[in-house]
Amino acid sequence: MTVYLIGIDGGGTSCRAAVAGANGSILARAQAGPANILSDPDTALDNIASATHAAFYAAGINARSIASARAVLGVAGNNVGEAVHYVKNRLPFAQADIESDGLIALQGALGDKDGAVAILGTGTIYISRHCETVTYVGGWGFTVGDLGSGARIGHALLQETLLAYDGIHDMSAMTASVLAEFKNDPRNIVEFARQAKPGAFGRYAPRVFEHMKQGDAVAARLLQEAAVSVDEALDRLVARGTQKICLLGGLGPLYSSWIAARHQSLLVTPEGDALSGAVALAVSRFGHLKAIE
Amino acid sequence: MTVYLIGIDGGGTSCRAAVAGANGSILARAQAGPANILSDPDTALDNIASATHAAFYAAGINARSIASARAVLGVAGNNVGEAVHYVKNRLPFAQADIESDGLIALQGALGDKDGAVAILGTGTIYISRHCETVTYVGGWGFTVGDLGSGARIGHALLQETLLAYDGIHDMSAMTASVLAEFKNDPRNIVEFARQAKPGAFGRYAPRVFEHMKQGDAVAARLLQEAAVSVDEALDRLVARGTQKICLLGGLGPLYSSWIAARHQSLLVTPEGDALSGAVALAVSRFGHLKAIE
Repeated sequence: MTVYLIGIDGGGTSCRAAVAGANGSILARAQAGPANILSDPDTALDNIASATHAAFYAAGINARSIASARAVLGVAGNNVGEAVHYVKNRLPFAQADIESDGLIALQGALGDKDGAVAILGTGTIYISRHCETVTYVGGWGFTVGDLGSGARIGHALLQETLLAYDGIHDMSAMTASVLAEFKNDPRNIVEFARQAKPGAFGRYAPRVFEHMKQGDAVAARLLQEAAVSVDEALDRLVARGTQKICLLGGLGPLYSSWIAARHQSLLVTPEGDALSGAVALAVSRFGHLKAIE
Repeated sequence: MTVYLIGIDGGGTSCRAAVAGANGSILARAQAGPANILSDPDTALDNIASATHAAFYAAGINARSIASARAVLGVAGNNVGEAVHYVKNRLPFAQADIESDGLIALQGALGDKDGAVAILGTGTIYISRHCETVTYVGGWGFTVGDLGSGARIGHALLQETLLAYDGIHDMSAMTASVLAEFKNDPRNIVEFARQAKPGAFGRYAPRVFEHMKQGDAVAARLLQEAAVSVDEALDRLVARGTQKICLLGGLGPLYSSWIAARHQSLLVTPEGDALSGAVALAVSRFGHLKAIE
């Protein structure tokens, strides 16, 4: 009986699964709803199972093979023992490792080579590998971390809009558009911000990049400040020996022309995505094993 | 029957009351628990009544005179109509005006003169009066406002500690002391910050001023950034005509040597406190009225 390998990329907005043969050749991929093991482990388990079933179905493999399959999962919150324990004991696979979403992204982008990935999305985290040592920088979340992230850029835009409303900073086309969206009443911004989660702030980040392209000086200033914080983190990775950098996440491509020239010269194109990284890790860990009957 | 005037300074940590004769001479002051009309209006009403009763008792006036007294209350949240309506209808006075805590502070500090107060505490707000027009700047709260406030300075300290932990910024004696307090585990900082209210962040602000005095370069940088945001707000007030500035709030005295020289030359000592300002407003509004029987 063939033992299939499974890669899972579980995120707060969706969960992706890939099924592969023992050599790592991916047979099919599929997607399901969110898989946040910290905030909602049961839904995460449901969606991990759904995505896996869909991938097996797409590959034309009987779902009964899931029970003998071996998986590597990349998820946020893999460092929280309690959540990992809960999920790991309830997975439908014969064997599974739960790793960070960052590690599978690193593996997907760089394969077995040394280097670093900067995951620049709603949050920010940097993962580097140097002589088999994997190091994490940042990733502390919106409240006191994630500098340069979409959430922080969106937050900065709302704060800047209030400063412009008060006449403390100059109003620009960008801040005027935000103020108009909140019916020109700053209290609506305050109320929105009071309840906003990082993703809600992050939805304002693309607007800053758009207005920057149209020459908005305030947008350029906010992005310059964000890029400085990304460059400072990258400096730290370079000081530790990083010579290759992949920019990942929704803001990765946008940042590629905003980071410092000293870092632009180190940029490389990712070899594959996080899901292919999860599969690659499954191959190296479980590819040599026989079926457990 | 004498009609007494009452001033109330209601805040999130305590409520103060003063009772005065019709000419505004303060007969006694007293204090009770918090009076936040937004978060807990019934407790606020209880504490407003308690502080008032205590002031009347201290002045040797029968508490029955409270029902014929006229009051001015300065509170946070006076711009939220629903909360004001609820509280105003339940006050034990013959007549009362509910104003902002900022307005009574302005009145107390400057009397009837033009000028501005910068209230620099857990939050920040600026109130100016110019030719009888009162203007508010800032005061939007911790999430997207209150730059330069104790809460924002404390927040910046925690964020800076994580940057130092990651090696992105240099560790200083100050950030090392914070990290040690959180058992050298950055996750404890993240967890604290996740649940912290502005006051909890603000309790870290005095530490920044202390370390600045001891020559800590990181402390000096954080305070410089905070002072720039205060100076930018003061620039706005000066552009509107302000020629006198009082720095109030817990951080007011600490900021007096950190703001720009152009603003230091405009600083004046406050004539009185917010409670005396509330009484002064009560005199000007109600001092000429006869008793309502």
